[in-house]
Amino acid sequence: MIVTLLTDYGLGDEFVGVLHGVIRRILPGAQIIDITHAIRRHEVRHGAIALRAALPYMPVGVHVAVVDPQVGTERRALALRCDDGRILVGPDNGLLSLAWQASGGALAAVDISRSEHRLEPLSATFHGRDLFAPVAAQLAAGAELADAGEPVALDELMVLELPVARIEGDAAMAHVLTVDGYGNIGLNLSHADLLSFGLAIGARVQVTSRMARLPATLVQTFADVPAGDALLYEDAFGAVAVAVNRGEASAALAVAADSELRISRA
Amino acid sequence: MIVTLLTDYGLGDEFVGVLHGVIRRILPGAQIIDITHAIRRHEVRHGAIALRAALPYMPVGVHVAVVDPQVGTERRALALRCDDGRILVGPDNGLLSLAWQASGGALAAVDISRSEHRLEPLSATFHGRDLFAPVAAQLAAGAELADAGEPVALDELMVLELPVARIEGDAAMAHVLTVDGYGNIGLNLSHADLLSFGLAIGARVQVTSRMARLPATLVQTFADVPAGDALLYEDAFGAVAVAVNRGEASAALAVAADSELRISRA
Amino acid sequence: MIVTLLTDYGLGDEFVGVLHGVIRRILPGAQIIDITHAIRRHEVRHGAIALRAALPYMPVGVHVAVVDPQVGTERRALALRCDDGRILVGPDNGLLSLAWQASGGALAAVDISRSEHRLEPLSATFHGRDLFAPVAAQLAAGAELADAGEPVALDELMVLELPVARIEGDAAMAHVLTVDGYGNIGLNLSHADLLSFGLAIGARVQVTSRMARLPATLVQTFADVPAGDALLYEDAFGAVAVAVNRGEASAALAVAADSELRISRA
Repeated sequence: MIVTLLTDYGLGDEFVGVLHGVIRRILPGAQIIDITHAIRRHEVRHGAIALRAALPYMPVGVHVAVVDPQVGTERRALALRCDDGRILVGPDNGLLSLAWQASGGALAAVDISRSEHRLEPLSATFHGRDLFAPVAAQLAAGAELADAGEPVALDELMVLELPVARIEGDAAMAHVLTVDGYGNIGLNLSHADLLSFGLAIGARVQVTSRMARLPATLVQTFADVPAGDALLYEDAFGAVAVAVNRGEASAALAVAADSELRISRA
Repeated sequence: MIVTLLTDYGLGDEFVGVLHGVIRRILPGAQIIDITHAIRRHEVRHGAIALRAALPYMPVGVHVAVVDPQVGTERRALALRCDDGRILVGPDNGLLSLAWQASGGALAAVDISRSEHRLEPLSATFHGRDLFAPVAAQLAAGAELADAGEPVALDELMVLELPVARIEGDAAMAHVLTVDGYGNIGLNLSHADLLSFGLAIGARVQVTSRMARLPATLVQTFADVPAGDALLYEDAFGAVAVAVNRGEASAALAVAADSELRISRA
Repeated sequence: MIVTLLTDYGLGDEFVGVLHGVIRRILPGAQIIDITHAIRRHEVRHGAIALRAALPYMPVGVHVAVVDPQVGTERRALALRCDDGRILVGPDNGLLSLAWQASGGALAAVDISRSEHRLEPLSATFHGRDLFAPVAAQLAAGAELADAGEPVALDELMVLELPVARIEGDAAMAHVLTVDGYGNIGLNLSHADLLSFGLAIGARVQVTSRMARLPATLVQTFADVPAGDALLYEDAFGAVAVAVNRGEASAALAVAADSELRISRA
């Protein structure tokens, strides 16, 4: 069974390599996919959204996620099974919640904090290595979820709440959910929202942040506007996004995750 | 069959992880090599040169390359077979051309834009995920090239033209083809060119850009000159290169890809 | 047999991808773990410490390390077998020495500079590709160590010397061994050293560098101090470390590898 990894460890140290080693010591020949290790440090929501976006493209397997500002405290550590057969492993801080909601819900969960699969001694600061990776490897090797820890009631799992877009007069008030490496901004709006708001391909809009205003055109892809111009489009993960063709929309609008944006007809 | 990947996606997002997932959903156990994902954004020529340099060191397989500023427009998408057995997959913008020229030429090509192997719905902006990766995985799994798309005449393939070095009086006028992560500059000159120009190991030269002039010595390796000194040498891919021992030649000369350099006897 | 890689090549070029290709051309289906490629350029000691830290978490295999400022000169190139069965491959500049010391010592070593397994022609600047990777792949495929090169006397191997902490009056004088991507500082002190120095969990200390002084608390994990406060703790690799919760201790103290730090009771 495949193991996927998503963390905020970065690639500037040997931490990710150590996760691979730990998994392969337990499960030689393990197939491992690094979804990403570039989640912004300690940004649980960034990790949760990236995990939800990537998971549909992964084979069903054991999916480890570690963005864990409370590592070493009493926060719970989880392994849980989703309705679609995926097993998720990570801290109980909401990081896994968008993924299991999108995977048909959680069917069973265990607290792995004292799992017999963990490495001893358990360090206070590197649970990816000592707890999450070895438990995931044992589960991928066929261990039973019920044997990996103590049962947890499903209604006790931490759930992440995302901001909700709303209509205000003739404008949509949306929020920045994602900013990718190109500065493209993913919003909590769907293309259907835009249609119901009366905006169709070709429409001219204003995108307004606290710091700046950007005229943009609703189009299908970057090349539909000249270089340097802003566009509104449905991104590859189904969200309405703001970009600047060959530029950086997040810089042009001076926004980051959670910033509110106003979208109105030009 | 192995699948290799070369893109300008960077590792700051989950995009590369998603490519791996898409390939392994189609071909569980696929062997994947990430040649690099650090091609400078949208720089097709940088990608084409890196692909040509790396391919001889790769097992024969299916080789995906994505540097695709025209994604979502009517540019063609290709899968093609080379004389040496390699299969290349990517946009028809010249990115693949240096590689197939170096692989004995292209024997057959198909336009995969509407391939039955692609993922539906096809996004307008992430053809790596929806088109190139799944087609490559199917080809690696044994699908026939002819079944992957519509035939394309070989003389219609986009071909990249590189600048050509020339002799002007007592100087060689060359161009920057590559700048690596250390600031070492690869030129469109071979060691044989230098020899025919009368320069042998130990020769002192001047390297002149628009912005700066650097005295350098023709040597075999970095440690042949003191730290901080410039050298001319044959790099590991057979090109004549300019470097500064423990320094950064590209910064010292203020050059980038395509910049012209004048090399003359000191 | 697994092959692990640790280099200072970075991921900004195709160099690491080329290593993977070279290994898989020799050993199709090779299992490769990238421990890290972010060793600071030419910093042999940084590489040696990271290799020693990561190796216990790797399956026993062939372990390649390349941080090689003398590439192309007469420095020896090594393959050696450790008492615990691991095989190490890399330049003879001390890079491997902490690892084989921690692996029970070296039992046999060969100089692979002219190994019959190397790629021809051998470049002067990319021995990772032409020498270390192909020799490692052959050894992982079952070739005998004795057939990979010429015997080297074990007492001729380059050994790295690390600075040693000492007590001065009522203070411990320690040195920075590692700085990770978060700015956390690993010292050449163990938790036992602190205990014998009379410091227990909860103790308040002063950490003083040449440039700054930081009050800190001896705790178990980051969350034991408020955000912005400094802590002293046992890191995941067993060293005493200095950190700032959600901050960067290396910046706060203006230190780098080898800097001396004074730790005294507050």
